[in-house]
Amino acid sequence: MHQRFSSFKYHGLIPLTESYLEKVKALLQAHGKPEKEVYLDLENSAPIAPDVLEAMLPYFTDLAYGNPTLTHKPGWEAYEVLMSARDEMANLLGAKSYEINFTPGESEANNLALIGYAIANKKRGKRIVVSEIEHLSIINAISLLESAGFEVAKAPVDDQGFVKLGELQNLINRETVLLSVGVVNHEIGTVQPIKEICKLAKDLNPQIAVHTDASDAVGKLSISLENLGADLVTVSSYKLLGPRGIGALCVREGLEVSRIVEGQLGTQRLWPGVENVPGVVGFARAIEIYVANLETYSSSLRSMRDLLLEGILNNVDETLLNGPSGTLRGADNVNISFMGCEGEALTVELSLHGVYVSSGSACTRRLLQPSYVLLAIGRGYEEAHGSILMKVNRLQTREDIEHVLDVVPKAVSRIRRIGGFGGDG
Amino acid sequence: MHQRFSSFKYHGLIPLTESYLEKVKALLQAHGKPEKEVYLDLENSAPIAPDVLEAMLPYFTDLAYGNPTLTHKPGWEAYEVLMSARDEMANLLGAKSYEINFTPGESEANNLALIGYAIANKKRGKRIVVSEIEHLSIINAISLLESAGFEVAKAPVDDQGFVKLGELQNLINRETVLLSVGVVNHEIGTVQPIKEICKLAKDLNPQIAVHTDASDAVGKLSISLENLGADLVTVSSYKLLGPRGIGALCVREGLEVSRIVEGQLGTQRLWPGVENVPGVVGFARAIEIYVANLETYSSSLRSMRDLLLEGILNNVDETLLNGPSGTLRGADNVNISFMGCEGEALTVELSLHGVYVSSGSACTRRLLQPSYVLLAIGRGYEEAHGSILMKVNRLQTREDIEHVLDVVPKAVSRIRRIGGFGGDG
Repeated sequence: MHQRFSSFKYHGLIPLTESYLEKVKALLQAHGKPEKEVYLDLENSAPIAPDVLEAMLPYFTDLAYGNPTLTHKPGWEAYEVLMSARDEMANLLGAKSYEINFTPGESEANNLALIGYAIANKKRGKRIVVSEIEHLSIINAISLLESAGFEVAKAPVDDQGFVKLGELQNLINRETVLLSVGVVNHEIGTVQPIKEICKLAKDLNPQIAVHTDASDAVGKLSISLENLGADLVTVSSYKLLGPRGIGALCVREGLEVSRIVEGQLGTQRLWPGVENVPGVVGFARAIEIYVANLETYSSSLRSMRDLLLEGILNNVDETLLNGPSGTLRGADNVNISFMGCEGEALTVELSLHGVYVSSGSACTRRLLQPSYVLLAIGRGYEEAHGSILMKVNRLQTREDIEHVLDVVPKAVSRIRRIGGFGGDG
Repeated sequence: MHQRFSSFKYHGLIPLTESYLEKVKALLQAHGKPEKEVYLDLENSAPIAPDVLEAMLPYFTDLAYGNPTLTHKPGWEAYEVLMSARDEMANLLGAKSYEINFTPGESEANNLALIGYAIANKKRGKRIVVSEIEHLSIINAISLLESAGFEVAKAPVDDQGFVKLGELQNLINRETVLLSVGVVNHEIGTVQPIKEICKLAKDLNPQIAVHTDASDAVGKLSISLENLGADLVTVSSYKLLGPRGIGALCVREGLEVSRIVEGQLGTQRLWPGVENVPGVVGFARAIEIYVANLETYSSSLRSMRDLLLEGILNNVDETLLNGPSGTLRGADNVNISFMGCEGEALTVELSLHGVYVSSGSACTRRLLQPSYVLLAIGRGYEEAHGSILMKVNRLQTREDIEHVLDVVPKAVSRIRRIGGFGGDG
């Protein structure tokens, strides 16, 4: 047990001492099941919604369990199910069926988009531009490309996370093969003017391909991939309460993308291996539920988001909202910095009261470094360290948010009083 | 619907005419549920075993659904569950916990082993040797390495699929960084003398790393990764009736392997992204059931295998067993060529009677090219085209095999009579 904990001992700006870890461990083990639980760490994982799981269940054991081929019944069923799910998803996303490519997840879709496109098109140019606040699966994938001889430029953002269009314009030239800017930022919820960005990029270089990670946008914002102007679009499953182990990359017709993993090809030309049929079924169902009820859900998400956001900002001193507000903010996203309050300690304190959130972004969390997204919008180290990210989902209610609003001020005040989780208060 | 079918219209050696496809389609649609079903296409996919699914169910919606971190209860649970599953798997496989790396599947594990190891160690040499009968995720991954400047040599096999050790010896030199030979061949079941191969390779070049795809060996053969002598070992989930969307690569301590997909790192240092907790739980349970009952199951698999194999060879004329027999053959593997009988047509005919098998290897099936594994052991085109691959599993019984033995001779005789599925008989 002790061994396991030591793998968490990465030393960032806040030293993770043995005694700190032991205290966290003891606390969480003694945790028990709180009377009421509200899970808001949708950024990093989520339970599958019961209605999505129900749709998946027959496909684990009874239906369509074959490899999708023409040669036997379970395979034929698998083929039909995969194609129907793909058609349905395409229809809901405003894409064409053959543009949808399933991958094992969002990270793989982002890697496929960036590495796969860059490699397939390297003869046309070796320059790639991304916004500085993209997801780590993009930021790290381009580092890999950089080490393989590609030239990478990061477009800066303003204090709310909007890409500075003037500066972006100066970064794109004839050598630029690929631009990647997410529709809705995963941490601070900034809704980028993605159509305008696509137009700007293509006016400067008609040969450029635009990738956008739409993981935080699909189902929460009205978008049609056909009208978006992007060429490569990443879609998430678990952020819509669908299963893990599945994601998708939409690739506009005619675009060349190289595979980044090789093997036996089935129905997916860009990713090899046996198709995850239950995963695809759950993914399609998760999208269907969100997109078919877009108006209802996005309005309810926005209303819960604002209740949560305003409830905290109005009732807790020395707080700062990170990212924009109103319609230019992701419908589900709340990201707040609590001054003089260490974020990690606050997550543990909140957990003891059944409120599950994340501190900064998960990517930087293990290193206990401040979120690069928050630093990019001009937050100082203390502001970034004291930040909490929360995302609401369609299964939650105002009552859940009220519970959070009841718990947060007390938890913040306790952590501030004891000077961090390691204190003696 | 017509659109969908056209994606199958790859023209290999047997032309897939529109009318052929229409006939298959009509037949399979009119299929109905046969009174008795026996699924033998384990090579390409499988239903999850009910006892494995049962273990997974709580983790979809209720337990350990967080990202494995220390900061909240669902994350802490996820961390505990992932570590326990890993410890348990390590124990069952004779490996160390930290040697086990989860990946989204077997193809990804094989790609990670070959590409990740070759890239991390390219300064030590750029030569890679693999047997000519490895899985396509290995054969195609090394093609990718070849195009990136690596030198690749394929070791030939004898007429039962055993790597020719004398020729292998001549292929390994001081520049050879990596050798890949599977423990049990996925198509013809050949059990390689893997310990001997590892010793031979390391005697020739102490710096060499040996990769082995143990997907068809784990749970069906008594192996301890510690004693195997290999440095990189691929383990399959679905071939043990575990879930799809998960696999593992065991990496011996101290070995350097580069990631091939980048992103946010959680508990897995070699594959980024949110961990698939239900997948890992199911995978561990699937391995546990097979390995903890190894003697019982492997003896029962062997007995069903031989009943099936001998029943066909003794009762159907002009048949050939592909691969070795007895203890040098994978416990679950039956691969038989039916002369004068087109394999694709036979799979459809068998399916109509509830027997689900694959024709040759799935990889080559969509192209309707003969299996490269069968060609490598010296089979002619007709022998390879008329081959059927079947694998038995722990949930099956002698009664199931007897049903298959009742169906196969009639089906073969009908396909032979009508001269292939497209005929008029």
